[in-house]
Amino acid sequence: MVIILTPAATESDVADLRRRLREFGYQSHLSRGEERTLVGAVGAAPPNKAAIMEALERLAYVERVVPITRQYKLAAREFNPGGSRFEVGGGVTVGAGSAVVIAGPCSVEGEEQIVATARAVRTAGAHMLRGGAFKPRTGPYHFQGLGDEGLRHLTTARAATGLPIVTEVLDPRDVARVAETADVLQLGARNMQNFPLLREVGRCSLPVLLKRGFSATYAEWLQAAEYLLSEGNRRVMLCERGIRTFEEHTRNCLDLAAVPAIRELSHLPIFIDPSHGTGRARYVAAMAKAAIAAGADGLMIEVHIDPHAAWTDAAQAIDSAEFGALMSDLAALGPLCGRPLHPVGGND
Amino acid sequence: MVIILTPAATESDVADLRRRLREFGYQSHLSRGEERTLVGAVGAAPPNKAAIMEALERLAYVERVVPITRQYKLAAREFNPGGSRFEVGGGVTVGAGSAVVIAGPCSVEGEEQIVATARAVRTAGAHMLRGGAFKPRTGPYHFQGLGDEGLRHLTTARAATGLPIVTEVLDPRDVARVAETADVLQLGARNMQNFPLLREVGRCSLPVLLKRGFSATYAEWLQAAEYLLSEGNRRVMLCERGIRTFEEHTRNCLDLAAVPAIRELSHLPIFIDPSHGTGRARYVAAMAKAAIAAGADGLMIEVHIDPHAAWTDAAQAIDSAEFGALMSDLAALGPLCGRPLHPVGGND
Amino acid sequence: MVIILTPAATESDVADLRRRLREFGYQSHLSRGEERTLVGAVGAAPPNKAAIMEALERLAYVERVVPITRQYKLAAREFNPGGSRFEVGGGVTVGAGSAVVIAGPCSVEGEEQIVATARAVRTAGAHMLRGGAFKPRTGPYHFQGLGDEGLRHLTTARAATGLPIVTEVLDPRDVARVAETADVLQLGARNMQNFPLLREVGRCSLPVLLKRGFSATYAEWLQAAEYLLSEGNRRVMLCERGIRTFEEHTRNCLDLAAVPAIRELSHLPIFIDPSHGTGRARYVAAMAKAAIAAGADGLMIEVHIDPHAAWTDAAQAIDSAEFGALMSDLAALGPLCGRPLHPVGGND
Amino acid sequence: MVIILTPAATESDVADLRRRLREFGYQSHLSRGEERTLVGAVGAAPPNKAAIMEALERLAYVERVVPITRQYKLAAREFNPGGSRFEVGGGVTVGAGSAVVIAGPCSVEGEEQIVATARAVRTAGAHMLRGGAFKPRTGPYHFQGLGDEGLRHLTTARAATGLPIVTEVLDPRDVARVAETADVLQLGARNMQNFPLLREVGRCSLPVLLKRGFSATYAEWLQAAEYLLSEGNRRVMLCERGIRTFEEHTRNCLDLAAVPAIRELSHLPIFIDPSHGTGRARYVAAMAKAAIAAGADGLMIEVHIDPHAAWTDAAQAIDSAEFGALMSDLAALGPLCGRPLHPVGGND
Repeated sequence: MVIILTPAATESDVADLRRRLREFGYQSHLSRGEERTLVGAVGAAPPNKAAIMEALERLAYVERVVPITRQYKLAAREFNPGGSRFEVGGGVTVGAGSAVVIAGPCSVEGEEQIVATARAVRTAGAHMLRGGAFKPRTGPYHFQGLGDEGLRHLTTARAATGLPIVTEVLDPRDVARVAETADVLQLGARNMQNFPLLREVGRCSLPVLLKRGFSATYAEWLQAAEYLLSEGNRRVMLCERGIRTFEEHTRNCLDLAAVPAIRELSHLPIFIDPSHGTGRARYVAAMAKAAIAAGADGLMIEVHIDPHAAWTDAAQAIDSAEFGALMSDLAALGPLCGRPLHPVGGND
Repeated sequence: MVIILTPAATESDVADLRRRLREFGYQSHLSRGEERTLVGAVGAAPPNKAAIMEALERLAYVERVVPITRQYKLAAREFNPGGSRFEVGGGVTVGAGSAVVIAGPCSVEGEEQIVATARAVRTAGAHMLRGGAFKPRTGPYHFQGLGDEGLRHLTTARAATGLPIVTEVLDPRDVARVAETADVLQLGARNMQNFPLLREVGRCSLPVLLKRGFSATYAEWLQAAEYLLSEGNRRVMLCERGIRTFEEHTRNCLDLAAVPAIRELSHLPIFIDPSHGTGRARYVAAMAKAAIAAGADGLMIEVHIDPHAAWTDAAQAIDSAEFGALMSDLAALGPLCGRPLHPVGGND
Repeated sequence: MVIILTPAATESDVADLRRRLREFGYQSHLSRGEERTLVGAVGAAPPNKAAIMEALERLAYVERVVPITRQYKLAAREFNPGGSRFEVGGGVTVGAGSAVVIAGPCSVEGEEQIVATARAVRTAGAHMLRGGAFKPRTGPYHFQGLGDEGLRHLTTARAATGLPIVTEVLDPRDVARVAETADVLQLGARNMQNFPLLREVGRCSLPVLLKRGFSATYAEWLQAAEYLLSEGNRRVMLCERGIRTFEEHTRNCLDLAAVPAIRELSHLPIFIDPSHGTGRARYVAAMAKAAIAAGADGLMIEVHIDPHAAWTDAAQAIDSAEFGALMSDLAALGPLCGRPLHPVGGND
Repeated sequence: MVIILTPAATESDVADLRRRLREFGYQSHLSRGEERTLVGAVGAAPPNKAAIMEALERLAYVERVVPITRQYKLAAREFNPGGSRFEVGGGVTVGAGSAVVIAGPCSVEGEEQIVATARAVRTAGAHMLRGGAFKPRTGPYHFQGLGDEGLRHLTTARAATGLPIVTEVLDPRDVARVAETADVLQLGARNMQNFPLLREVGRCSLPVLLKRGFSATYAEWLQAAEYLLSEGNRRVMLCERGIRTFEEHTRNCLDLAAVPAIRELSHLPIFIDPSHGTGRARYVAAMAKAAIAAGADGLMIEVHIDPHAAWTDAAQAIDSAEFGALMSDLAALGPLCGRPLHPVGGND
């Protein structure tokens, strides 16, 4: 870290600071400028480093403490410079240069609905099926998902189509149960900093799709991934799904620069969810194409066989025909952007 | 709700909309303006109202759907126009017009530390003791709290001072265990939308302090409270602890207008946490006084017997002497603002 | 507008409201629901409508006033449903389905620099040259642009390459002078709500590129455009250049959903500036391609012949070789997205 | 500045960086840690320092460049450690420990209205009269102020009451004209970064009230003040008027921590505007009291003799009776907070 002293800091302040740093196990280097003195503290980071930085910031002669090292290690690009590539759901390889498409409804509403949707998105070329059985809802009176019944319908849909299942888990007590059905566990935006849940999912052997919190920074998101990685789960996919801004016309602001930025900061594959990312069905295709042009590793798209009747997120779901047209566009566009669509599996 | 049609909407669009509303169980009222037609839909709100609104927004001839009713009922001021007032910790009455002060360290660091702090804040006039045994930390390598050992130290501190204990619970699996020690369960900002946790705490008989999420709106916060209330727990205190803004000099931006606004929207008592709300110890006193002047029902303040040595949040903790001076100021200021300090209990 | 009454509103409150609305020249329609009564007010909007809405919001029995009509008319899509298409700089047609690329340095630094850059971007296929002679700078001690000398160098660069000039104007007193040199006047993000400047530029015959304020909503941006349009200047291009969010890794967050959203709300062409939009040179190409994939009408890209030596915005400028490679990519990608590159003019 | 190198930086990268710094006129100091190397660059800051920092950030082996010195000098607390104190309007001293209250309508609507309001606020104890003759309005069809006629009415109101006049100027071409009438020039939030206007007002001899931009940081605000100070105008008051956040119930979020923060960072007096800061008349008194409790140097409050009839900002104006009651509360509260109300002048 670098400690920037106030203009009023004296010689004895500097000495006091260096003594403290020594006690904390740091070596210190001094740079004196005309206006400010700054002290670089280096050495093996002690485990309570965050506390040390806060304590130093309290000192009257300290103006600011600037951290140097990133707060994540296993999630950092340096840990795996070539980028992570792994298989999910027996047949889909993520991070290998092709675009993987996850499609399906916001919520599982019944067997017929999810099976029909699974068939439709499979026909159009999707690689995985999404569908929520447990739903995080802002208010207690909203539909909270079909729960276990929804999981059973997802199993039926997988049997019918061969598509691996991506579904959300909300409660650390449900992880084992959801993991029996899911091929990929989804962690939603509101749970990005639900640390007990992250730890529980980190101990699970299934791959994880970790959505970005709607006001989270990249660093916070990667630290959330670090929770998963540090528990031993190395198959972590990140998913940008829009952040909260002052604009109200769209539900969220899709931050597509996350694609090149996360690729630089981390080795983990980066997905884009243009459905939550805009909240408006008629913007989904434009943003999905933009995501592939920017180099995303995959997409997560809400598709409903009858969006007007959807129980949740009706405003942002596209229908099967719109999804089919989008997949055609992506098939043409992808190869020009280094993101050809992932081959479709042979099982049915 | 009100449905605003696009300028291009035709007569048959209007008829189609009214037919749909009828099917959903609504009556509709039409207002034709020169530029726009708008349709008011009234009637008993069906349980899937949010879904209906989303489905209507999808229609090509609909520009916007405006909700009319608030998404919370038990938390609304109308539910209890006189304001909620209840006892916590056997002797402290919240919401009765006097200011209740919760003070203590961010984390329990050991028996000696928490007992000494408890004694110091009690001497200065605090009404309850805060101290975290389970800590939500952005990264997995940060100190995560002493856990059960921390709970034991809190019990010791209560025995030594008589101060009721406010401590955070993070995991739905820990609620019963933490409730054995705590007098008030704290739900942190990152867990404001952790719905399984809200439900579990809602089923508990202890009072709750629900912090506002750092990017949450009042409506989302009150819907989170509604989760607690709808499970039967009516002793809910709200606590504003600062929101994320573009300013980096302070850790958060303390939104003091939450005091009059929450009082208008809800009957629940409103607390202010100036420590997290600014992140800087030297701004805490100014903001604590401002909170009381604005009419807050209580304060939550981080106090550490040796802030420079605090394991967490050192930058924002004040020491015992600073806390004592602040309590004197509040004792003078409070009566002028309709917020005299709550009387200190007689047990010791 | 729709006026939503509080649950406590009485019959005489409703009568009072309807009387007020009648006095303001509105007709009112009543919808009574189980929880709320709402009143739709229609009729020719009086000029002081904003004031009326505010006055109604003050009434104790009014919960909220919801505007129905948009606050802009000339900028709305309905005003020109087919979309605006116009010529700028004698030979470049904007809004006609092809992608127009504006490139050049942040600041004009000297004749040699701007002429060399102009030649380089022209060779790579750019359609217009950007370069700032008057620079808005956060602090007074930063380089403020070469001023009139910069304008002379831009004239030289245009003579050398035939490229039309896009340059910023900051001060209403400079509009006439800058208009003598420029082919397109640029209004920067910080001046989006500089109303005297908007009016002055609106009275000018040159086309305008209006950047979005870094915290502005679409509605505010389109109202700023309305200032230009209502003064008679109909050749207005909008340019999204990134908004301020909590993320610090990138300088701004490029809101690409502005492309489909503005196309829906307005008939004005929409440009994207991925240089300011990310603030990092190495993300510019990814975001430029994403912008074209999303359907942007054009791009504005910072190019410097020697970015390491740039006087301003060095971190976000790409060099001539990078720009050339990007233009090749766009030439391949554009036709697949309905955005082939605009043909390059024949003059030299 | 401190330059933090990437983990991959080599010895020759370090040598290259130090050579570049030498050429820019800096001395460099090296600190090698286990994970990162960092280089402190000290020496007289060259005028193009911002450009140098950007250029360094472009280097592949540089992770981040951290500025050390603040970007403002004349506005910094160090420039005047005791705090600025100056007279405005012949009789009111700002910054001397007493609270100065500016009150009046958003807009001047006519002679009768402004004179009656001036009398009412004077009776209640206000020290200065506010009233807008030139109004910045989001859309071109909103009331833009009475202009010169408004200035004449303000002159009449001053003659009638002796209250100094605070009024906004929007256009650099109007500064001289408005200065003939005004005692204090107000620069509004939208113009905080209107640099030509700042320079023109900086050359004027009148004191200035500089409002914070609605998404500006403290550093940007103080740099805007630096524009004024560096032109020679030393009588600058800062005014916090609420920032934009995600909360929609209030118009803005009043950032009261600006009071202690600005006092620490700068010597300039800090005012609070609770009217714009909340946008709701019924929250104004609570936030005005909170501002004084936090130690503000003054308040700016919208008062209208008949708020329901106000042409602008009706929702946030309080009436004369409410203002009178607030002034009584402040008179009692102020002395306890080190902010007794400024004595009322004797002229009439």
